[in-house]
Amino acid sequence: MLTTNPFDDDKLREECGVFGVWGADSASALVALGLHALQHRGQEAAGITSFDGHQFHSHRAMGHVAGNFDRDDIIRRLAGRAGIGHVRYSTTGETAIRNVQPLFADLSSGGFAIAHNGNLSNAMKLRRELNRRGSIFQSTSDTETIIHLVATSTYRTLLDRFIDALKQVEGAYSLVCLTSEGMLACRDPLGIRPLVMGRLGDAYIFASETVALDVVGATYIRSVEPGELIIVSDRGIRSHRPFGDVRPRPCIFEHVYFSRPDSIVDGASVYSVRKQIGAELARENPVQADYVVPVPDSGVPAAIGYAQESGIPFELGIIRSHYVGRTFIQPSDQVRHLGVKLKHNANSALIQGKSIVLIDDSIVRGTTSLKIVQMLREAGAREVHMRIASPPTRHSCFYGVDTPERAKLLAAQMNVAQMNDYIKADSLAFISIEGLYRAVGEESREETQPQYCDACFTGAYPTRLTDHEEAEPADQLAMLQERYA
Amino acid sequence: MLTTNPFDDDKLREECGVFGVWGADSASALVALGLHALQHRGQEAAGITSFDGHQFHSHRAMGHVAGNFDRDDIIRRLAGRAGIGHVRYSTTGETAIRNVQPLFADLSSGGFAIAHNGNLSNAMKLRRELNRRGSIFQSTSDTETIIHLVATSTYRTLLDRFIDALKQVEGAYSLVCLTSEGMLACRDPLGIRPLVMGRLGDAYIFASETVALDVVGATYIRSVEPGELIIVSDRGIRSHRPFGDVRPRPCIFEHVYFSRPDSIVDGASVYSVRKQIGAELARENPVQADYVVPVPDSGVPAAIGYAQESGIPFELGIIRSHYVGRTFIQPSDQVRHLGVKLKHNANSALIQGKSIVLIDDSIVRGTTSLKIVQMLREAGAREVHMRIASPPTRHSCFYGVDTPERAKLLAAQMNVAQMNDYIKADSLAFISIEGLYRAVGEESREETQPQYCDACFTGAYPTRLTDHEEAEPADQLAMLQERYA
Amino acid sequence: MLTTNPFDDDKLREECGVFGVWGADSASALVALGLHALQHRGQEAAGITSFDGHQFHSHRAMGHVAGNFDRDDIIRRLAGRAGIGHVRYSTTGETAIRNVQPLFADLSSGGFAIAHNGNLSNAMKLRRELNRRGSIFQSTSDTETIIHLVATSTYRTLLDRFIDALKQVEGAYSLVCLTSEGMLACRDPLGIRPLVMGRLGDAYIFASETVALDVVGATYIRSVEPGELIIVSDRGIRSHRPFGDVRPRPCIFEHVYFSRPDSIVDGASVYSVRKQIGAELARENPVQADYVVPVPDSGVPAAIGYAQESGIPFELGIIRSHYVGRTFIQPSDQVRHLGVKLKHNANSALIQGKSIVLIDDSIVRGTTSLKIVQMLREAGAREVHMRIASPPTRHSCFYGVDTPERAKLLAAQMNVAQMNDYIKADSLAFISIEGLYRAVGEESREETQPQYCDACFTGAYPTRLTDHEEAEPADQLAMLQERYA
Amino acid sequence: MLTTNPFDDDKLREECGVFGVWGADSASALVALGLHALQHRGQEAAGITSFDGHQFHSHRAMGHVAGNFDRDDIIRRLAGRAGIGHVRYSTTGETAIRNVQPLFADLSSGGFAIAHNGNLSNAMKLRRELNRRGSIFQSTSDTETIIHLVATSTYRTLLDRFIDALKQVEGAYSLVCLTSEGMLACRDPLGIRPLVMGRLGDAYIFASETVALDVVGATYIRSVEPGELIIVSDRGIRSHRPFGDVRPRPCIFEHVYFSRPDSIVDGASVYSVRKQIGAELARENPVQADYVVPVPDSGVPAAIGYAQESGIPFELGIIRSHYVGRTFIQPSDQVRHLGVKLKHNANSALIQGKSIVLIDDSIVRGTTSLKIVQMLREAGAREVHMRIASPPTRHSCFYGVDTPERAKLLAAQMNVAQMNDYIKADSLAFISIEGLYRAVGEESREETQPQYCDACFTGAYPTRLTDHEEAEPADQLAMLQERYA
Repeated sequence: MLTTNPFDDDKLREECGVFGVWGADSASALVALGLHALQHRGQEAAGITSFDGHQFHSHRAMGHVAGNFDRDDIIRRLAGRAGIGHVRYSTTGETAIRNVQPLFADLSSGGFAIAHNGNLSNAMKLRRELNRRGSIFQSTSDTETIIHLVATSTYRTLLDRFIDALKQVEGAYSLVCLTSEGMLACRDPLGIRPLVMGRLGDAYIFASETVALDVVGATYIRSVEPGELIIVSDRGIRSHRPFGDVRPRPCIFEHVYFSRPDSIVDGASVYSVRKQIGAELARENPVQADYVVPVPDSGVPAAIGYAQESGIPFELGIIRSHYVGRTFIQPSDQVRHLGVKLKHNANSALIQGKSIVLIDDSIVRGTTSLKIVQMLREAGAREVHMRIASPPTRHSCFYGVDTPERAKLLAAQMNVAQMNDYIKADSLAFISIEGLYRAVGEESREETQPQYCDACFTGAYPTRLTDHEEAEPADQLAMLQERYA
Repeated sequence: MLTTNPFDDDKLREECGVFGVWGADSASALVALGLHALQHRGQEAAGITSFDGHQFHSHRAMGHVAGNFDRDDIIRRLAGRAGIGHVRYSTTGETAIRNVQPLFADLSSGGFAIAHNGNLSNAMKLRRELNRRGSIFQSTSDTETIIHLVATSTYRTLLDRFIDALKQVEGAYSLVCLTSEGMLACRDPLGIRPLVMGRLGDAYIFASETVALDVVGATYIRSVEPGELIIVSDRGIRSHRPFGDVRPRPCIFEHVYFSRPDSIVDGASVYSVRKQIGAELARENPVQADYVVPVPDSGVPAAIGYAQESGIPFELGIIRSHYVGRTFIQPSDQVRHLGVKLKHNANSALIQGKSIVLIDDSIVRGTTSLKIVQMLREAGAREVHMRIASPPTRHSCFYGVDTPERAKLLAAQMNVAQMNDYIKADSLAFISIEGLYRAVGEESREETQPQYCDACFTGAYPTRLTDHEEAEPADQLAMLQERYA
Repeated sequence: MLTTNPFDDDKLREECGVFGVWGADSASALVALGLHALQHRGQEAAGITSFDGHQFHSHRAMGHVAGNFDRDDIIRRLAGRAGIGHVRYSTTGETAIRNVQPLFADLSSGGFAIAHNGNLSNAMKLRRELNRRGSIFQSTSDTETIIHLVATSTYRTLLDRFIDALKQVEGAYSLVCLTSEGMLACRDPLGIRPLVMGRLGDAYIFASETVALDVVGATYIRSVEPGELIIVSDRGIRSHRPFGDVRPRPCIFEHVYFSRPDSIVDGASVYSVRKQIGAELARENPVQADYVVPVPDSGVPAAIGYAQESGIPFELGIIRSHYVGRTFIQPSDQVRHLGVKLKHNANSALIQGKSIVLIDDSIVRGTTSLKIVQMLREAGAREVHMRIASPPTRHSCFYGVDTPERAKLLAAQMNVAQMNDYIKADSLAFISIEGLYRAVGEESREETQPQYCDACFTGAYPTRLTDHEEAEPADQLAMLQERYA
Repeated sequence: MLTTNPFDDDKLREECGVFGVWGADSASALVALGLHALQHRGQEAAGITSFDGHQFHSHRAMGHVAGNFDRDDIIRRLAGRAGIGHVRYSTTGETAIRNVQPLFADLSSGGFAIAHNGNLSNAMKLRRELNRRGSIFQSTSDTETIIHLVATSTYRTLLDRFIDALKQVEGAYSLVCLTSEGMLACRDPLGIRPLVMGRLGDAYIFASETVALDVVGATYIRSVEPGELIIVSDRGIRSHRPFGDVRPRPCIFEHVYFSRPDSIVDGASVYSVRKQIGAELARENPVQADYVVPVPDSGVPAAIGYAQESGIPFELGIIRSHYVGRTFIQPSDQVRHLGVKLKHNANSALIQGKSIVLIDDSIVRGTTSLKIVQMLREAGAREVHMRIASPPTRHSCFYGVDTPERAKLLAAQMNVAQMNDYIKADSLAFISIEGLYRAVGEESREETQPQYCDACFTGAYPTRLTDHEEAEPADQLAMLQERYA
């Protein structure tokens, strides 16, 4: 069986979202609402762990937050004034419940729960070492490595053990951890993945995006800084900088696609940045046309920006069904050839005989773009000029984003002219990397030390890729899973 | 438990969508795709009945098409080259599976399956008579009345029995019926609910909207005409006009809200009509403002029309979550007061300090409008001018649309100034009934014989309301359900 | 997949049990307990319908009573002081929930629920006639015929309509019906299937067997008489004899196998009759042996009777697992040849080198007897002499007992010597039909008008077999199901 | 809600059964069959782990083997020629799936799966030490301690690490472990819990009881000896005796109640021992009566022995329903007072006016005996003389048997005369401890070094009870669960 969701399949996917509350009644209900607002960051599984002053409570489930964490009995069981939660999209086929976060361990110092957005780039190496010394892993997740590093650290206090553990890991991590003593929130030295802090009455809240603060009515305070470790307990809040001064490099793709348009990421309105991208795109790659048409919904803000800059009317030339999730399955081999349009449908009455500027946020494999251009042509469009709101995606991400292997990235195989031939558009253009930096408010990209992680466009990875260099991670994971299946 | 979906709760709801295929391989797979494209017309339950030349096969389920009818085993079991399907939203609390359509009966002439969009206005009266003569009903659905009228008719051929039955019923019905001999499709004499016909290779297809033809790659031929009865069998297609000449009055609200914007309803593009409504609204009720902001997604086409006519920029001031279906439940009493924003969130960074023209399609109870105006103000909007893309909704519908009792319709209780006070906007205006008729392409509304059913706005019901006049239908249904619970 | 339950597969199976209560608090809870005690009469599905003075409530489920009807929420929903219930084993593959009883219909006189033990022998013929007059059936069950006959009867009172209906049906029926006015209990003129009446405080109870009275602590009053119709209402109890005087012929197999040993059937203790059968068997067919060994559990009482009469010690030479229901599936083709002993295991330590008299209640296909003799030999038994507590089963039952088609009955194909060869025992003997009549307390069988229905042994059917004579019922049902599948 | 299973609630319960196969096709199918035959040793959960030469596969489920492990898809997924399985009854409320065995860990030496029958008496102490050194536990099971001891052992080979681990634990353990190199089977030095070895073609099989060999058609070879450690690999089979010579003390209660009557335990037929117990009981405690009646099914063999020794006829005075599992729930408060007889029913027709010797295997809390005596009196029994096939149960078991706390054991609070008053029998007698030793074939019990563990009768525990002495285990487990809930 094959999903009939032809378009979303061709997006990069954020792997996770995290949320934590310390000091509020019904903390778990707030966590559930927060996770729901972060659902776009991970649809495969979700989990919440709470602490009620005596006991930890945990519930993890495959599937969406709605349907699993909106049930009174579940939320009531997750008692307490502190809780953390996680939504997950996994890069691998490994969907076992034991990998669903928060992970929990009963350390000699007490219970310890952890929720992680990002990906460690030396987890396999650390795992092998821990294994040799007698540590027994219960998941195939890189996150569990952190727990065992804390458990076997020779430092005395939990805080020192936690910092000891973080200093051994490489890669991207925005973490929210829950212990009986307090909540730990931290972001790796480069701040690759986002994390923000908010306030709701006396309670502190941490979340991957500000929309999760909005949904619970919390006030946005500030981002957790790259390399910052914050501890909240009943005695108050303290900030640590265990890694000293490191120049941050947050992920630029959060602005292009991952984050919701109504979020503020590292101080900037995502909606406004995307409109700026559209405007830059119009300036860099103008074209004569009747309508500017977005691929809904992710292409809409850039299309509005393009339309306003170019003066070409913005129109809904493609209608998106509300009822296609990732789970609709083509019901039969016999109908597969029909080119079913379960998710998007052309607004034929509008586009018949017209020339279209089609705006999308990115091209990954190109299969979607090919189909959507074809759909518009079959509906009568005279010309289709495709404009992409990000530079060509040429490299895999190792920091918590689901990218296909390089060989499947269209832009890793072809130049722009070849790509245009492939998708059969009348013209194709991408925003330049410089244009993208201008849209996020920089004067230009600093070549030696770029202000953002833009490795998926440029290949300039900001950390070592230990596991990747030692072996193909796919092979390692395969070996690992072999033992666990 | 209370749904946390504050906005959709305040819409009128279409009760049903129907789809039928005669003469295609894997007919049920096509029906499933078609129903999926009609999901917006009924989310509560769905069903498919197929005929394989020897046997009828049926599957009905509570919930969406996806998840129930995208499974290979289900579709394979629904074998045959002919099938009909139905999606349902029920006006009552009666969600039992026995009311889910298609209904099926084993008549002396053979199997007979029926799928019905609309509502009969004399079903209770007919039911009492049939009951007295020994007919045993298995559902509380008005549609079953038609089956018993066919079963007990004294005419000889099935076609004559079917026409005999239709001549006894009043109200709205677009029907697709499946027998071992052929498929029957018909529309009541006024054509209140829509029904279109398409072609896919040699197969004939009937559907409530053209989007369901698009999804299977079928070609749109024409609407089934009001009062037309079409029979498709292996010997070809025939059209009957059993009711003679009656002036049609299709539902105008299909253009305002029910149908998908990419559908063609009775010859007109829904998207284009909605943009026209927005333009009329701008002409009738102009206002100075920074942005035109739609309540997503239903307000978007009218907002684009308003923006283009007025020259005020169209902006996404409200972001809609993709992950709120109708089922998310507020997880706890303690968080209910937070004013959770699970479905819509204000794009604060955009609207801070701005004056907004807010476009929605209709006001039913007004509770949603109140909350959304308040949400925009809390997010910093300086002024909120609400503009509604339909006239005030003052009367209940008895033709297959879920309307609250009149006492709960805001416009039945207040004039526009009072409504503005209630929703706390800076100004409020509705399109006029004349403006609406202009938007759908009429010169003006013919007072004595209006071209559309607009009873929800005007109270001018086009048929007798037998059951309603004899007793409150709510009471009758209560009595009925008492015996069945 | 194949069940691994090699022995029970070769039993005749009672198709149903019924239970009704009028006038007790928590009537449904009592019905659930009663059905649980009747579970051996039907394991495939169960249902309860209650009446609370205003409304009828119904719940039907596939599977056992435990797990479906022992849930507080279910029982609380089935409110009222009156209720009826049914357990079902179906002879056909038709396990759809719509055939699960009680069946319910909303007649013009009010709600009518019916639970039926037995089988009508002219249901197909009546169904065709009703169909022609416009009655629409919702199940493939013969029982629904009775409802339509009541609904279309031209008599005025419900009682007269009910009697009118019964006079048109042939075959076996013990019925318990629930209306808003009272409870109807009746038994066909021959009293083929059992039905008893009991009292619990002020409440009246009807049940297929006395064990269901025991389980709720009710007192056994008497059997409902063959041809008797009892009406219980708040005004008291009345008995009718609508069929005049007919000589009864209750099923003799209830004593041999169907009923529980702790039940009283038509005045006689089943346990005591089975011991008598064992004693007769010992007298008719004595043999020298070390141990009398029953096939557990149904062969135990006859084995005790045989042991006491013969003086040979009674021993458990075969142990039955408590954990094999009808649902255990052989997990893999590869292990099928192992001759798995999931249900019964030989007590090898005991029977090694011994001569055994093996007692079972009947031989149907013979496949089980073959395997069990083989199992005892492999466990070391020196001799195995099989003795059967009923005469050879040579004819199908048309009165509500699941029998294989005649061609599969071993005794319809072979004489006793051939059967002995087939099952590979050292000797084989059955009780004679005369011996069986002596065991149930008769002096002898009256040839012209036997005191019992013993058609499965003798072929002497006590009613017409209308449907069977007009066509093979299997064909008719197949035709019927074709339309419904 | 309360279970309505009044009798089984008052039995001691074996906690586990284990099964392992090395070297057979479809090993998991054999394991499923074996576990099914051991279902009486644990009904709460079951699990299987297999090894296919490359990968380990595992499936664990709450509930019975049937319904969970008889599905083709499950068994096919559990590929390989080696597998181990476990059925579990838990003493605590902790029924989480993470405690269901086999437990699996990915050690540095490779995968390691373990299934354990018994209970360690120093697991809490070892756990605290391991925790302090950084080991992270994933279950609350004592069995996991063994895995961490193996993982952190400083010995080099897996065999040495395993022996190192076993030497640190105290208590009862029959273990079957699966690694990629071979299968380990061992029994604690005292051999408290049973374990047998069998052969099926070239494959070796280990099982808690011989019935599990029978069900797969395997040949019984011998018991694994107390203190023996057997390794089976593709290179053959080796036996080790790591603990030197220790005098064994197997559990005597296996003969009284736990094992199935058709099993051979440490060389003796369980059925035959139970008949001997009945005969000893008749000699030690004779009584005049009409019938010997067993409490079915566990009392049957002793009742046959009593009847044969005394000459009083054996009769089924109590009938047991086949359809009461442990899960039937009293459907309503209102019927609780009825004294429902869902599981056992008196055979009133038989026992009316008679004097009965009632045989049961043991008295735990006494609540059941009280009810069953009362049930027989209400059914008309003239006298009820109770005879118990084991000595009074006065002490808790710490070796893997579920016993209530001492304060709830009737025999810990009363002498036999007081117990007789409590259960309201006409007389009550237990077999003596000397009589029990005679029944199992010993001349007499050796006071200083008894041949069996009989601590539940005598309080003579054969090992240290470290955890029990340091703190109440209930408290410790509560503390543990607090962190995990």
